[in-house]
Amino acid sequence: MTDYRAPVDDMRFVLNHVAGLPGIAALPGYEEATGDLVDAVLDEAGRLAGEVVGPLNRRGDEEGAILENGVVRTPAGFRDAYWKFVEGGWNSVPFEPEIGGQGLPWAVNTAVSEMWGAANTSWSLCPMLTVGAIEAIGAHGTEDQKARYLPKLVTGEWTGTMNLTEPHAGSDVGALRSKAVRDGDRFRIHGQKIFITFGDQDYTENVIHLVLARIEGGPQGVKGISLFLVPKVLVNDDGTLGQRNDLRPVSLEHKLGIHGSPTCVMAYGENDGAVGYLIGEENNGMACMFTMMNNARLNVGVAGLATAERAWQQARAFALERTQGRDIATGEPNVPIVRHPDVRRMLMDMKAKTEGMRALCYYTAGRMDVARKHPDAEVRKAAQSDLDLLIPVVKAWCTDTGCDVAFTGVQVHGGMGFIEETGAAQHMRDARIHPIYEGTNGIQANDLLGRKILRDGGESARTFLAGMASDSADIAGSENADVAACGRALAASVQALEQATAWMLATGPSDICRASAHAVPYLTLFGNTVGGWLMARAAAAAAVDGANGPDGPNGFGGADWCAAKIKTARFYADHILSRSGGLLASIADSGDTVMALAEDQF
Amino acid sequence: MTDYRAPVDDMRFVLNHVAGLPGIAALPGYEEATGDLVDAVLDEAGRLAGEVVGPLNRRGDEEGAILENGVVRTPAGFRDAYWKFVEGGWNSVPFEPEIGGQGLPWAVNTAVSEMWGAANTSWSLCPMLTVGAIEAIGAHGTEDQKARYLPKLVTGEWTGTMNLTEPHAGSDVGALRSKAVRDGDRFRIHGQKIFITFGDQDYTENVIHLVLARIEGGPQGVKGISLFLVPKVLVNDDGTLGQRNDLRPVSLEHKLGIHGSPTCVMAYGENDGAVGYLIGEENNGMACMFTMMNNARLNVGVAGLATAERAWQQARAFALERTQGRDIATGEPNVPIVRHPDVRRMLMDMKAKTEGMRALCYYTAGRMDVARKHPDAEVRKAAQSDLDLLIPVVKAWCTDTGCDVAFTGVQVHGGMGFIEETGAAQHMRDARIHPIYEGTNGIQANDLLGRKILRDGGESARTFLAGMASDSADIAGSENADVAACGRALAASVQALEQATAWMLATGPSDICRASAHAVPYLTLFGNTVGGWLMARAAAAAAVDGANGPDGPNGFGGADWCAAKIKTARFYADHILSRSGGLLASIADSGDTVMALAEDQF
Repeated sequence: MTDYRAPVDDMRFVLNHVAGLPGIAALPGYEEATGDLVDAVLDEAGRLAGEVVGPLNRRGDEEGAILENGVVRTPAGFRDAYWKFVEGGWNSVPFEPEIGGQGLPWAVNTAVSEMWGAANTSWSLCPMLTVGAIEAIGAHGTEDQKARYLPKLVTGEWTGTMNLTEPHAGSDVGALRSKAVRDGDRFRIHGQKIFITFGDQDYTENVIHLVLARIEGGPQGVKGISLFLVPKVLVNDDGTLGQRNDLRPVSLEHKLGIHGSPTCVMAYGENDGAVGYLIGEENNGMACMFTMMNNARLNVGVAGLATAERAWQQARAFALERTQGRDIATGEPNVPIVRHPDVRRMLMDMKAKTEGMRALCYYTAGRMDVARKHPDAEVRKAAQSDLDLLIPVVKAWCTDTGCDVAFTGVQVHGGMGFIEETGAAQHMRDARIHPIYEGTNGIQANDLLGRKILRDGGESARTFLAGMASDSADIAGSENADVAACGRALAASVQALEQATAWMLATGPSDICRASAHAVPYLTLFGNTVGGWLMARAAAAAAVDGANGPDGPNGFGGADWCAAKIKTARFYADHILSRSGGLLASIADSGDTVMALAEDQF
Repeated sequence: MTDYRAPVDDMRFVLNHVAGLPGIAALPGYEEATGDLVDAVLDEAGRLAGEVVGPLNRRGDEEGAILENGVVRTPAGFRDAYWKFVEGGWNSVPFEPEIGGQGLPWAVNTAVSEMWGAANTSWSLCPMLTVGAIEAIGAHGTEDQKARYLPKLVTGEWTGTMNLTEPHAGSDVGALRSKAVRDGDRFRIHGQKIFITFGDQDYTENVIHLVLARIEGGPQGVKGISLFLVPKVLVNDDGTLGQRNDLRPVSLEHKLGIHGSPTCVMAYGENDGAVGYLIGEENNGMACMFTMMNNARLNVGVAGLATAERAWQQARAFALERTQGRDIATGEPNVPIVRHPDVRRMLMDMKAKTEGMRALCYYTAGRMDVARKHPDAEVRKAAQSDLDLLIPVVKAWCTDTGCDVAFTGVQVHGGMGFIEETGAAQHMRDARIHPIYEGTNGIQANDLLGRKILRDGGESARTFLAGMASDSADIAGSENADVAACGRALAASVQALEQATAWMLATGPSDICRASAHAVPYLTLFGNTVGGWLMARAAAAAAVDGANGPDGPNGFGGADWCAAKIKTARFYADHILSRSGGLLASIADSGDTVMALAEDQF
């Protein structure tokens, strides 16, 4: 497997030109996020990711996490790498200084998170889950809960988990059967949870589980679900660790990928009941979960990007090194396969999609920063509107596209791609989880359709699309022919998305089945277009940077690099935005065939 | 893992209405292929595939083939199933009676092959490779070679392999280093071959290896390659087995999928040299290999279809059984997930693509039958022209689409899809090999472009496309609204394909790099369109059958079944043919970005 090297040039470029880092650094509380500091953060994180975390990736896949005598053992090296991460302060990057965080923008943290995910998907999941626990406790915990649990979660001395799924309650969380029995001012939790990522580990002395359960006698369905904090080891009032709680990992799943990540079946309360503390209000657990949903879904989208970046680096290195066959134009024998046009096409496809995903992830994180920190409530509201709209797109589009890129990465390797030792196949296997968890991509598409488009009558979508349309006109006027072509392709794609949105708004209220049947193609059209918009903006910025030379005011990467960015954006426009008309036709100009068959006709 | 049940209704329908079985059965030599006989063949093969071969699939994946003390051991049950297959005469179905075959049409054999592949991809590869050996020996062997080796290969008492690849000679076979040293009227072979499917097994007492090697002193490159027959055990003049030959499996590859299939590194001639017999003329090995290429590539295309069929059956069963969530329209709780529009969309997508692949595979096999058996040389020539054109499309499009279907199959299962015990992930892993071997799909696309489109100035393509255009006009005139819509979508898609073909013909001669850079999207457009053509023809036939009732002259499956076929074809038209315009734009209306970056800009 090729070593991972953080793509710091593109990260800096996208943070500055796409995510709007200069503006974010001007927000109150983010003043420290200067260009120099961010550069240093990216370089340092890149070093740890490349030198420590990345090299464990293949071995983690081979060894896998195991459950031995009731204890999870992570693959060799995972624990040490985790503590280097904690000691470097990397777990605390985006959190508020009041709780021990470094208070850096989420946009910057997203770039850093991408590095962990790209270096080692399995390993990166533990800190990713901790973020969710911190957000939930921070938003809904009591002052005592915050004081007791947050500091060590923020440093990473303890880790966090999310416990939603049960065997009969997957996407339908409301069907869960875990119950909580009142026991003084706390609760006793009984039940089994499945698919619990890093439900146990051998890194830290405590794990803080957030568990959804129904308080005895509570309403059925989602309205009777409460959120509980259930520590692996109880925490005394003085912060020391007390008794072991009544919970344990029962078994680990045997999975297609992310073998290094222990996916636990967790048993709560097999004896007296696991001690749990209510987070937020009774029966309000789903709302508490939704608080952290935007962040969690953004992070999974970033994981899709990250695995794609790793697959791309692997394929690129192979294509540059492996010699095979003749140059089709010159006849030169035994050339590196990057010289073959179809290999080149695959590489460009991987590169363009990966850069498009990066642009979308960082941009979205930047909107989150504005939504959280901007002094003007109207500006915050507008950013939150964009954020809510984009979150399902980031999650689903980046994870679908990430799988697509990893699939292509295998193909670049030819026969070697099918051999596990090569490492390309692992990326494909690892990437496959992302479209499934944190709400399947079908659920994301229905979230986009139902909550983000139909609920407000398309208002936030219209605003967002108008911004893209306006940009497309500007970009189409560029003097650079490739940049102008990006603008024209974007304009056509935005128009297709507008028409598809209009169709959804016309169809949804009267025939939700039919609208929902097209929700995934609609999300794909949305994602392709937004990715193309941000790539076109990047190309326009690269044209300016490139003209100013590598030492110009924004000379990220240099003139050659800027020229490559423009060609990559043009490739995106030609080969990905070109699909928009077909997606529109598939949505708005198709018979009602999705639901046409009776169940017994399948 | 869900049991496999051969889709005999669709197979019969496609054989009769798409592949033209009635016409094939009228060809000299195929008179026995009556409807009744074919029905019996399908039923019997379906029983063996469903009851014996299919249930070994999951276990084969878990156990895998192993190499122990120099001997390959296949997973438990594989050997017994193989001998049931041999004893049932299934290995000999398509071969000429002169060599012990049953002389059934290739179209029928393709349906039967689909069953083995769907039941158990790994297990099916051994007989698939034997077919190639039989074809090569049959076409190029001496009378003695034919008499000595063919009878037992045809029955399946011995198996065959193909040895092309070496560590530095993958797609570029001409770079191989294995050498052949003259030793009287035979040769001694020395060299190492990799990726040898079923290079050894514990089924049969002999394995007949076909090995590409360079005769000492022969020309470099592909022009110095010869084909050798190298038996695992030498065969005496009286047909009894003699000495063990100097060859052995050195190791097995650790692969992403097809774990039950031993993929061997083979060493030839570590001692005195492996005894090999020249097949065909010296230095003409590549031509001999190409003889069987059409057949082998058709078979791999069928394997893509087969794995998709299995993945589809698995996803369908899960979607009908698994309950989760509310009906989005009625609010009914805890419904089977097939009621959710997006799950339904995924199922329709899998079904439409799988049926489209089946139509293409059987149709192409039917053209092979006509090309081999028709009494009129002109008709044979026309069929051969179609066949040559379609072979790379079948191989690449069916294997890419097969991966796509298996990927969707995982998604239908949600979290369970990622758990290996479910079985959905295995199909995705197994399917991944098909786009790689027997010439990567990039090579297929370049074959389509270079040898099949450019070489004859587009003549055979134009003839073929004209036939589709004419059919589309007929079908668009149907009284059935869905069938007519299929015809209209087909007409637009054929037009896009015509324009893309014209672009290739205009671009290729002057700029082969640029043409080649778009060869894969061109092949995808070709495959989507041909699949849509045959689905539209199927829909038109189903409209007639459906109207005539289940007891009508062609009442395959019954009226409900015919209605489902029509809706499935309409889904294909709406959601797959709709992409043709985008593919055309991507090919003919794009900047020259694929080759735009210098190697150091990656």
